[in-house]
Amino acid sequence: MPQPPPPPLASPLWRSLRAYQIFGANTEVGKTVFSTLLAKAAARRSPGAVAFLKPVSTGPDSEADDRHITRFAPDVSNKTLFQYKIPVSPHIAARLSNRTIPSNEALLFQTRDYAAQCANIGRKWLFVETAGGVHSPGPSGTTQADMYAPLRLPVVLVGDSRLGGISQTISAFESLRMRGYDVESVVLFKEDKYQNYEYLAEYFAEHHDVPVAGVVEPPERKSSPEEDVRAMSQYYEEQSQHKDTSGVISHLESRHEQRIDQLNSMATEALRNIWYPFTQQSLLSPKDINVIDSAHGDYFQTLTPCSATPSQSDSSSSSSSSLLRASFDGSASWWTQGLGHANPKLTLAAAYAAGRYGHVMFASGIHRPAAELSSTLLKGMQNPRLTRVFFSDNGSTGIEVALKMGLRAAKLRYGWSAEEKLGVVGLKGSYHGDTIGAMDCSEPSGYNEKVEWYDGKGHWFDYPTVLCVDGKWRVNVPRELREALGDDADFGSLSDIFDVQGREEKGHHLRYEAFIRETLERLQKQGRRFGSVIIEPVVLGAGGMALVDPLFQRALVNVVRKSPDLFRKPDTSFETPSSPTAWTGLPIIFDEVFTGLYRLGRFSSSSFLETHADISVHAKLLTGGLVPLCTTLASENIFQTFSSQDKTDALLHGHSYTAHPVGCQVALESVKEMQKMDRGGSWNWAKSQGWATPGSSNASKQPAADVWSTWPRDLVEDLSRQTDRVSGIWALGSVLAIHLKDASGTGYFSDAAQSVRDGLIAGDAEGVNGPWNVHCRVLGNVLYLMAGQKTTEESVARIGSLLRERLKE
Amino acid sequence: MPQPPPPPLASPLWRSLRAYQIFGANTEVGKTVFSTLLAKAAARRSPGAVAFLKPVSTGPDSEADDRHITRFAPDVSNKTLFQYKIPVSPHIAARLSNRTIPSNEALLFQTRDYAAQCANIGRKWLFVETAGGVHSPGPSGTTQADMYAPLRLPVVLVGDSRLGGISQTISAFESLRMRGYDVESVVLFKEDKYQNYEYLAEYFAEHHDVPVAGVVEPPERKSSPEEDVRAMSQYYEEQSQHKDTSGVISHLESRHEQRIDQLNSMATEALRNIWYPFTQQSLLSPKDINVIDSAHGDYFQTLTPCSATPSQSDSSSSSSSSLLRASFDGSASWWTQGLGHANPKLTLAAAYAAGRYGHVMFASGIHRPAAELSSTLLKGMQNPRLTRVFFSDNGSTGIEVALKMGLRAAKLRYGWSAEEKLGVVGLKGSYHGDTIGAMDCSEPSGYNEKVEWYDGKGHWFDYPTVLCVDGKWRVNVPRELREALGDDADFGSLSDIFDVQGREEKGHHLRYEAFIRETLERLQKQGRRFGSVIIEPVVLGAGGMALVDPLFQRALVNVVRKSPDLFRKPDTSFETPSSPTAWTGLPIIFDEVFTGLYRLGRFSSSSFLETHADISVHAKLLTGGLVPLCTTLASENIFQTFSSQDKTDALLHGHSYTAHPVGCQVALESVKEMQKMDRGGSWNWAKSQGWATPGSSNASKQPAADVWSTWPRDLVEDLSRQTDRVSGIWALGSVLAIHLKDASGTGYFSDAAQSVRDGLIAGDAEGVNGPWNVHCRVLGNVLYLMAGQKTTEESVARIGSLLRERLKE
Repeated sequence: MPQPPPPPLASPLWRSLRAYQIFGANTEVGKTVFSTLLAKAAARRSPGAVAFLKPVSTGPDSEADDRHITRFAPDVSNKTLFQYKIPVSPHIAARLSNRTIPSNEALLFQTRDYAAQCANIGRKWLFVETAGGVHSPGPSGTTQADMYAPLRLPVVLVGDSRLGGISQTISAFESLRMRGYDVESVVLFKEDKYQNYEYLAEYFAEHHDVPVAGVVEPPERKSSPEEDVRAMSQYYEEQSQHKDTSGVISHLESRHEQRIDQLNSMATEALRNIWYPFTQQSLLSPKDINVIDSAHGDYFQTLTPCSATPSQSDSSSSSSSSLLRASFDGSASWWTQGLGHANPKLTLAAAYAAGRYGHVMFASGIHRPAAELSSTLLKGMQNPRLTRVFFSDNGSTGIEVALKMGLRAAKLRYGWSAEEKLGVVGLKGSYHGDTIGAMDCSEPSGYNEKVEWYDGKGHWFDYPTVLCVDGKWRVNVPRELREALGDDADFGSLSDIFDVQGREEKGHHLRYEAFIRETLERLQKQGRRFGSVIIEPVVLGAGGMALVDPLFQRALVNVVRKSPDLFRKPDTSFETPSSPTAWTGLPIIFDEVFTGLYRLGRFSSSSFLETHADISVHAKLLTGGLVPLCTTLASENIFQTFSSQDKTDALLHGHSYTAHPVGCQVALESVKEMQKMDRGGSWNWAKSQGWATPGSSNASKQPAADVWSTWPRDLVEDLSRQTDRVSGIWALGSVLAIHLKDASGTGYFSDAAQSVRDGLIAGDAEGVNGPWNVHCRVLGNVLYLMAGQKTTEESVARIGSLLRERLKE
Repeated sequence: MPQPPPPPLASPLWRSLRAYQIFGANTEVGKTVFSTLLAKAAARRSPGAVAFLKPVSTGPDSEADDRHITRFAPDVSNKTLFQYKIPVSPHIAARLSNRTIPSNEALLFQTRDYAAQCANIGRKWLFVETAGGVHSPGPSGTTQADMYAPLRLPVVLVGDSRLGGISQTISAFESLRMRGYDVESVVLFKEDKYQNYEYLAEYFAEHHDVPVAGVVEPPERKSSPEEDVRAMSQYYEEQSQHKDTSGVISHLESRHEQRIDQLNSMATEALRNIWYPFTQQSLLSPKDINVIDSAHGDYFQTLTPCSATPSQSDSSSSSSSSLLRASFDGSASWWTQGLGHANPKLTLAAAYAAGRYGHVMFASGIHRPAAELSSTLLKGMQNPRLTRVFFSDNGSTGIEVALKMGLRAAKLRYGWSAEEKLGVVGLKGSYHGDTIGAMDCSEPSGYNEKVEWYDGKGHWFDYPTVLCVDGKWRVNVPRELREALGDDADFGSLSDIFDVQGREEKGHHLRYEAFIRETLERLQKQGRRFGSVIIEPVVLGAGGMALVDPLFQRALVNVVRKSPDLFRKPDTSFETPSSPTAWTGLPIIFDEVFTGLYRLGRFSSSSFLETHADISVHAKLLTGGLVPLCTTLASENIFQTFSSQDKTDALLHGHSYTAHPVGCQVALESVKEMQKMDRGGSWNWAKSQGWATPGSSNASKQPAADVWSTWPRDLVEDLSRQTDRVSGIWALGSVLAIHLKDASGTGYFSDAAQSVRDGLIAGDAEGVNGPWNVHCRVLGNVLYLMAGQKTTEESVARIGSLLRERLKE
């Protein structure tokens, strides 16, 4: 077995160490002068306890920043990680150096290491100076603002006092701010002609509540080096004592304390002020609250539990313990996360739409983000039935929209009266959202039994599931259905199970279809009336992460579509639509909120069933994990149901922020990016982990057998052999679901998965790059882990390794 | 009567004129060289049809940009609007000039005028060159990126080829992009040492899909001016013919066509792809669709109807007609708009949270934006009952959360069984959202009668309303309630009606209370069971913009609170809570989704009733008009109902994007900004329009009589005298509601207000600054106009004037 990769990066934060990153609004704005000044001013308060780090330096040794510091602030420890002699941008200098170009990770880890050393040996201040401007490229070519973001060091921005410097300073600030940096202080030289200081002090106070400090300019270059040194020494001596400089240090000191105090008190306050969703709060104490300082890629930076103590005790004994740890976002932030936390492309998409439109009235209106998103989705679905996009805010409201559409269509075609309430046909344990209408699509369960207005309307089929059990891929038939559906069946691979066409050729679907038809006939005889089919294709999410035999769902759709006789109103006629894209039997609603848009590896999860919905609901990954938005796609035939000369026939649904441009623009960016990744083979590494042949994926035509997961097949099969604890396991797309043996049988409210989860949450407290853990959720006896679409092979290996360990314990 | 202010600014867009704004990544990056080059290259294609505008220029005449253009591109017309001789930033130069400092508006209007002239005389190209960098301050002190935003000219960004220029170029791009500029092209000098062109070409292709063009640098300065001129002439001659330069022109030309084609086809496509909310689409044609190119402040920029024709015919006959017009956002974008469209503060707040967190899992988690927003809201409400914040996505879901809370609390205290369904007590015509649970809180009506699963549960009181009729402020009692409530009553002012304490001292509430109690007693005898009161304080929004007598709603709350006997389960005991903040009678839910957060001029609309809710729902203005977010605030007593050692007792509700950081950060910024405006007297101009004494408003204690509106009292009273058409009118906060006489009596589906609305939408086609109109919505026979919290006195005067005109017609 290969060694697991090193732990992820923990953001550097210690109470005892005030670590700040110095960014420049431009090159040559005096970053090193300010670093020296601030370091000297800090050293006046904490002699011998100030450090300076230059991760990357370019230019001749004689002008190197560390030399400058050594000369003028001799009691400040200082270090340069990578030094290049050519005075150009680090990305060119590194390329020309004939040395190995350090990766972003190497730079971040070494910067964190240095900070950790500083904390361990009792340093009180650390200034980390960047090179050039905020977006100057680092050695790898990534711009510094992006590269250093995972560290989340608070920032001192050195403004530009020259002509044009106002613009440079504000733009640099904005570039940092939109990457989630906390810019705590702006400093720049005071200069009379352009008066940038005066303007910026007012500007930042008014717009950003950030203090701006002005410092007199250093002396002009003297004729001799000695004179120069003398003049500069005097300058530093005077200015580092100046109240404006020491004011900056005091401010940085107090902001550091505030940040930590806030992090420490946030859990307690949250439990006092917040009413958490789906949470029995009386069972929680502050240590159970995930205090999130920031997030990047797959990882949160969360407060380590040991530090969640009152600040008094903290500042002494545990002063060198790191306050933050990297936490793998193992629930993909409630199944929304796709393109990585704090993805700059999504941020800029959101900012663009906010800056061009804000929100604009959508009823009878149109704007480019909504127009382009609509056509992208309709095209991407490759479903000839779908022609219309209805916007709402989340999966639950999108389902209510779908219901209003489907039920009305059925009612009108079959001529049911307003009093004859129609139910839905669904699957047992399905869940479609938390608003009452969406809840009513689910059978009674622990989720809804204590909700006052819940009134489930429908019939819910039990169904065969897919699991890997003791290393074998199996279709499991529930005991009560054995007689109708036959026994469990083993398959060679997940792909074989998903080869629905191949299985149909062998007639596997016939028993399914017969069972479904018989059941629906029986219900019809009982006088039951139905108005729509609603299913989550392939995976029931909130209902317990159940992987359904796709052949069963396909059989359900096919039976319904060819059997209008089962749903018509007795003794009335109805018009059979002539269009091949019109619905027949019942409108078929696919709830792809969780399963769609690449969560299971494909644009649409309906493609696993090789069938097309009449109404399809999409949310969560739609916006790549940034803001709420939902689209309900419908066929023209369904749409026409609401079309008349009568205003009251319209679909009377709509939220204030319908099709808000920020959501639409972000969704457009996300969907296009995921499509591009799909086309470009970005997931070939995952496919080659025992799943499918890389390169066989193709956005325009997905072979039925192209099923794969971010999680390696051997991990899945190995874990499934822990038969004392694991009852079965499956992986598809970015989802891994481990069904644990549960003696109590309490379903959603079971504790079976809790101990494994606790092990993952405890994580690794002694990681070489700081502590780290896996934040994850359970659904009753199921522990699931969900990656994003940008999750790396390295992350997967790291989590897989921890998972093997924890499941063995 | 004073003259109405001039029409608002229409963004300059004509098919025949390609107008681009040249921004620089920094000062001295060669903006003028590139302007000259592009103008010359454009003039090769369209001789004599190219213009250049420098709105503001600083520096000596001899170096002025217009001279440079005149010399090297003599066939390009050029103009400077404001010239200052001192070579400093325009904000300093203007101040030192001893001339009147031009306002932003003056600059924008003059720039648009020049563009209009160019279009009218058949120019094909216009380049508008800015001064310095993107954020260099204009004469007024506003930075150019903000100042020019309303024009929405597409941009050519001149990148910086010097050391540090990569950073400057990317940051400048980001500052423009987050203000909604379309940067169509980046151009910069090619230079070998720093290789910025090479880096940026790759960067912009990969990250932004924007082409970067590199041009060789101009020749070095020669020893004599003549040689200089000769060398530069030759440079321009060569480079303006170079394929890279002409490639830029071709690209700008095609982007211009694409933009217009897209605008022209968007309405047709929208009607084909979109399923609109609350809209009978069969009654719409493309000309009814509001095609929104951008928005700023109170105004959309929308496609003018005459231009919504196929592009072929457009390019010839109507080539000089402006394609865009300013449209006042008269529905405040479905009641959400508060701090102005495209407000840079809200954009940056959104971008910060996106960049620091993305979305992060909220169940058992906490992040700073959610923590700070929660405490700000709880504090701002000044309601000692409310201690808890539950997050959801929109008003409808927030109401469902409130219902789940309130109904369960009542059920548990009074010991109702699961089968004994509880209804709500509400007001006739109320509306609380579109999801089924929220719909079930409303009585049957045209809104819900065709919704399949709708099943209204409750009793809805008829109620007295407030209207200004023929210049008099009156409480109108519905005919069927006259006997119980007495006759209509006239008051001297709206404030007198809202003086609920004064009216109670006179005993006005006694008849209300008696009527309410008698009704509830009767319902109890009929076996009706209730679980919550749910009302919109003061104004019923979607139910027809009805202003309710606040004394009636107060009486309802008071009667319910002192009458647990009316709601208890017969023959069972219940515990009376000892806490003064616990609910009694029934939980009182205030739906402040529309009425709260300054929509009616106060933080909470409950303050008009001088009473406190047990559960309070807030959305729409919560995020200042940017993204969806809702909070349901609840009392500790309600919260404790769900608290036990049993997980299944928890409130099982929660959306994936619960408390998404982007929404929370934007809401925090919005709420704080509105509170600051309130404290700072930002609305004193409105209050002094006949409403209240300015300065009497005070966030910590609102006197009952402090009622005012953005819409002047004399406008309201004048319009109410048009008694042939107007049945009554009211204004409160930013809302103006004109109830028109409606013979048909078809309520929500009435057409009575349609003709007035059509007049406003037609607007003024011949405005001196281009066409403009008012986009507004009707609710049956009610035409309403809604301003934002940043709407200016000028806008209000402009709309008021048009309204007077249109109502007289």
